[in-house]
Amino acid sequence: MSDYSKLEKCLDYQFKDKNLIIEALTHKSFKKPYNNERLEFLGDAVLNLIVGEYLYSKFPKSNEGELSKIRASLVNETGFTKLAKEIDLGSFIYISVAEERNKGRHKASILSDAFEAIMGAIYLESGLEVLKPIMLNLLEKSYDKINLDVLFSDYKTALQEITQAEFGSIPEYKLEKSYGPDHQKEFEVSIWINGETYGCAKGKSKKLAQQAVAKIALDTIKGKKR
Amino acid sequence: MSDYSKLEKCLDYQFKDKNLIIEALTHKSFKKPYNNERLEFLGDAVLNLIVGEYLYSKFPKSNEGELSKIRASLVNETGFTKLAKEIDLGSFIYISVAEERNKGRHKASILSDAFEAIMGAIYLESGLEVLKPIMLNLLEKSYDKINLDVLFSDYKTALQEITQAEFGSIPEYKLEKSYGPDHQKEFEVSIWINGETYGCAKGKSKKLAQQAVAKIALDTIKGKKR
Repeated sequence: MSDYSKLEKCLDYQFKDKNLIIEALTHKSFKKPYNNERLEFLGDAVLNLIVGEYLYSKFPKSNEGELSKIRASLVNETGFTKLAKEIDLGSFIYISVAEERNKGRHKASILSDAFEAIMGAIYLESGLEVLKPIMLNLLEKSYDKINLDVLFSDYKTALQEITQAEFGSIPEYKLEKSYGPDHQKEFEVSIWINGETYGCAKGKSKKLAQQAVAKIALDTIKGKKR
Repeated sequence: MSDYSKLEKCLDYQFKDKNLIIEALTHKSFKKPYNNERLEFLGDAVLNLIVGEYLYSKFPKSNEGELSKIRASLVNETGFTKLAKEIDLGSFIYISVAEERNKGRHKASILSDAFEAIMGAIYLESGLEVLKPIMLNLLEKSYDKINLDVLFSDYKTALQEITQAEFGSIPEYKLEKSYGPDHQKEFEVSIWINGETYGCAKGKSKKLAQQAVAKIALDTIKGKKR
């Protein structure tokens, strides 16, 4: 396919230099003097910054470790493949006949690399301030509300405001269990309000488990009020 | 020390928000409600982009793997500590009494983190286009000419131009040996001009070894001409 207008429409961006979009779409298997690896290098760095800054503003109380964890859950091959599919990037990529037979157009690594390259190309041509809204719109479109809620909401604070008003007390969180090797630990946390438990939830950090169980309690309390 | 004007002069940047520079200078040992870890998170990402883009332009023919390797040699604790010392950042950092006794002001990890935080703070306050020249000036000042030459020069091209003019032939590079595990391979390459060898050099990639041996040959040929 050589008509990029559909892709440009999805991106809400028009390339000034058509050679740049071609380079960004060219997988190394296509055996041209150029391919998208250099633009991918640039795109990787700029997306890391854009998502990092987004989280920095969204979570003013999170520390560096938490921000890094959340970013790592978005900035990776799976995450970028999701975004690539959102703009149907696979249909526009140039790959070799062999890769084509090998379903390369649907491979996570190829899609993710091309996505980074396209973003790198926009950055190169138009700068950070043009790329930022494009990337953030895509991010917000691609992660459904539930995911975004879990990532970006502060259920603990919301819950505490309600329990203080309703019960005159704040929730208590108890670590019930933690398991798994150090680099892959999981935590199970229960929540107690006024001596009564409202549930239990797991998470990859204590904080994430607390957020998850706070959401359960919040839903229960809101349900009772209706 | 609470007079930042010397630091601001070294950076050639005046902070509008003095709280921001204070946050960037505060190590977590200082036990304040804030510390420089969040700004370090932001700084790390923005420096990775700035240095990446710099190398992307400096080496238009290098592939992604080479660019990543060169960046990794600059964007790391040792590299940032070097830059931190260039602006005497250690004198301005807030650390605990215990860290002070422990020579924290001279620790690579503390200096490097504070450097990233300061750069993150400038980015946050004034954006990428203001930070870029500040960072790149520092980078160019801190790496002496020899290092920069090795990193940024293309000895192979320079040598080839000379041998074509002098001998009517181009240099040949022979891979003599490669050793080490895959992630840490080293290559030894020899150079031949008109059937005569001009030396041998090692490098972390074939290309780097070729550049290094091209430099040897270049120096020899230039020496003979004098």
